[in-house]
Amino acid sequence: MTHTNSEILELFEGALAQIQTPEEPELLYAPIIYSMSGGGKRLRPVLLLITAEAFGGDVEATMPAALAVEIFHNFTLLHDDIMDNAAVRRGKPSVFAKWGGNVALLSGDAMLITAYKHLARVAPAVLPRVMTIFSDMALEVCEGQQYDMDFESLDRVSVEEYLLMIERKTSALLSGSAMIGATMAGASDDDIRKVYRFATELGLAFQLQDDVLDSYGDEALGKKIGGDILEGKQTFLMVQAMNRATDAEREVLRNTHRDAALSDAEKIARVKALYDKLEVRRIAEQQIELRFERALSTLDTLSIEGSRTASLREFARNLMGRKK
Amino acid sequence: MTHTNSEILELFEGALAQIQTPEEPELLYAPIIYSMSGGGKRLRPVLLLITAEAFGGDVEATMPAALAVEIFHNFTLLHDDIMDNAAVRRGKPSVFAKWGGNVALLSGDAMLITAYKHLARVAPAVLPRVMTIFSDMALEVCEGQQYDMDFESLDRVSVEEYLLMIERKTSALLSGSAMIGATMAGASDDDIRKVYRFATELGLAFQLQDDVLDSYGDEALGKKIGGDILEGKQTFLMVQAMNRATDAEREVLRNTHRDAALSDAEKIARVKALYDKLEVRRIAEQQIELRFERALSTLDTLSIEGSRTASLREFARNLMGRKK
Repeated sequence: MTHTNSEILELFEGALAQIQTPEEPELLYAPIIYSMSGGGKRLRPVLLLITAEAFGGDVEATMPAALAVEIFHNFTLLHDDIMDNAAVRRGKPSVFAKWGGNVALLSGDAMLITAYKHLARVAPAVLPRVMTIFSDMALEVCEGQQYDMDFESLDRVSVEEYLLMIERKTSALLSGSAMIGATMAGASDDDIRKVYRFATELGLAFQLQDDVLDSYGDEALGKKIGGDILEGKQTFLMVQAMNRATDAEREVLRNTHRDAALSDAEKIARVKALYDKLEVRRIAEQQIELRFERALSTLDTLSIEGSRTASLREFARNLMGRKK
Repeated sequence: MTHTNSEILELFEGALAQIQTPEEPELLYAPIIYSMSGGGKRLRPVLLLITAEAFGGDVEATMPAALAVEIFHNFTLLHDDIMDNAAVRRGKPSVFAKWGGNVALLSGDAMLITAYKHLARVAPAVLPRVMTIFSDMALEVCEGQQYDMDFESLDRVSVEEYLLMIERKTSALLSGSAMIGATMAGASDDDIRKVYRFATELGLAFQLQDDVLDSYGDEALGKKIGGDILEGKQTFLMVQAMNRATDAEREVLRNTHRDAALSDAEKIARVKALYDKLEVRRIAEQQIELRFERALSTLDTLSIEGSRTASLREFARNLMGRKK
């Protein structure tokens, strides 16, 4: 009697729609409603709920935690947009752009508190553990964001440092969600560790793929290619390239994005030519395969029946945009 | 076997000193250590702990919640300083001034999460209630801050609106602390409501006194007089004066702080002359007496022995700078 992943998503959207947000003060609460109704794939709450169901947990009982992780995720976007000076979020003006920094700051704070308010409805027997997993996860996300900002001012970042950063910034919220789902369903410590590993590896595969697609994606899909290159961002491709390049090539990798003599297309072409020469796309794709395979094979080791992991496998494939 | 208030403060400082904060990333955690070790009177955790002891609670068992409210309080200061563009906090550079807005933003987020991390150590039997009181209190503080910012752009604020704002911005954290202390000590719902009322009225008396002292304090005590007037801030004195003034007087109250032809001393003298004429200091002092008396008389109605309320009375007198 478990649900399909799309049924889970529907149940989650239903629960989200039922949340009552106060009307006043308007500048505190209207941005929260705006932000929560801006779409998004609801990846984290869906992962939390299907993990709980895989271990025999009840969707309704688990819902408060699912709401908490989704509200937390949107809180991080609100505050990230202040730090990154980002005007657009999900194709609409960001809260920061629409209402200004102070409103985005304070509304974000209220969202973080609201996330915990939902978490307080988790069954008392597991609440201390769930709260601790949630808070540790939340701190890791903050650490990831800080490392990401630190990296902007560094010339060289090691591959290990980069992977640790995205493990915190991207994977932590997925792995924390999976752990909370398993914990609430009464999974064993061993199984909780394993779903943690599953979601960590999956999150890494997802972020690395995101890095690759930003430079090698399909323009036909409406995705703008080369944004990371033009921003001079540290990505897996850039970090790998910097580590494999000659001194002269490193100068090119480092300075092309700020070379006023080049057009955007020229900048992108110049950096990608080096990426190709240094074979960093191939290395990234190997890493993605490795991480994705590790994620899936971790599921084989869980103590539950294999059939119960089907929704987790489907979640993983969907996340990576794969048929199988 | 209860403690004196100064023993409670010492126990709290001891517990605070034992907190281990991670070292990296440095820009995330160093501002937290800086902010928490910047002094402050620790009013909220002390109130929480003495309320718990008044109802027979154990200081050590209550300590995690006391740490949570103090960390939360310092988090609000960190974020308020961003919103207010404030360079100085407790006589030292604010985190915002020392490290910049992005660091203050993200470190503040990590502090709020850390506050909840401590809260998770509260006994599971009362954790859901404590978490709910804490989160409601935290949201009220955000609401108070938003109303305070809203008021800046308003010409007229009613006395009722002003009192509701400071009830959220100042009282909520005191009343929430008292409620958490009483709840953790197993007080009855009726007693919890009463300590809520005690701390709410005390917080209002405290904030109103703060408003009066900003215009009428003792320069000899090293306090700079007239800051609120020069900023054109909405205070109880200003709000009352605007409500009692003639149209012509209102123009003076509204515009004096931005009159470039006047010196600071002249601006302060001009506004205070109107305050005196409109008798708003007397009205404020009546309100302060009324609120303070209400706070103390609420303590008489608690179900516990009168002697157990001695530390709460002492706390109230100390807060107001009174001998008796």
